[in-house]
Amino acid sequence: MSAEFALDARLAGDTCHVASLPLCEVLLMDDARYAWLVLVPRQYEVSEVAQLSEDDQAMLWREVNQAAVALRLVARCEKINIGALGNIVRQLHVHVVARNVGDAAWPGPVWGHGKAADYEPTARDKLIERLRETLAM
Amino acid sequence: MSAEFALDARLAGDTCHVASLPLCEVLLMDDARYAWLVLVPRQYEVSEVAQLSEDDQAMLWREVNQAAVALRLVARCEKINIGALGNIVRQLHVHVVARNVGDAAWPGPVWGHGKAADYEPTARDKLIERLRETLAM
Repeated sequence: MSAEFALDARLAGDTCHVASLPLCEVLLMDDARYAWLVLVPRQYEVSEVAQLSEDDQAMLWREVNQAAVALRLVARCEKINIGALGNIVRQLHVHVVARNVGDAAWPGPVWGHGKAADYEPTARDKLIERLRETLAM
Repeated sequence: MSAEFALDARLAGDTCHVASLPLCEVLLMDDARYAWLVLVPRQYEVSEVAQLSEDDQAMLWREVNQAAVALRLVARCEKINIGALGNIVRQLHVHVVARNVGDAAWPGPVWGHGKAADYEPTARDKLIERLRETLAM
């Protein structure tokens, strides 16, 4: 299936690539308001977790957990939010977001809340580098 | 651990009991706007998925998938939304929500959006019964 995988154009435009795990591409949402990862299984035309095989579902959630643990190690974080919505972008993707009291959307969900804030490019590159190192541990 | 488990008071107040799976209590959110299940692992003082053992994480996501499949069978549904947020209620719980184009929050997230709508009691009881039967299949 992976030969036919192509990242959704909107996801590609909103994110920076961090790493390739066995099942998923790991992307950083280009929004300085939150340390926010998005995991996208390299599968063709899948929009629901339930469409993945049992083995791939298990791997997806293991990789989501790996991303959550990495975020906790790299970013200050009160709470991790995990979400698989896909109402707008149908390509299956799972959000893993480091949340903090007083952040832009706290205590509500980040999805659909206001506009993304620009990262200072050096800060973004440094965050991506630290996430990459942590995911490889 | 299960001896010390007590359902968070706010979750208890907002939901009706549907079923007990091996790891989780399955609750129906008392909100007629969406067919909306909440899964709560019977664990003591756990707020993040990452705090569960690997085996319990795997079981949690299997039960979440079971709930998603049951919702699809019982409720009209364009998209399943899955979310583990916990910014307000810290007891670990995972939302599984049947979404439809034009529903009250579409295409945004349901969390924090407006006020719950009352179910007609007979309709709620019937939905719970059908979910219970489907989860037991």
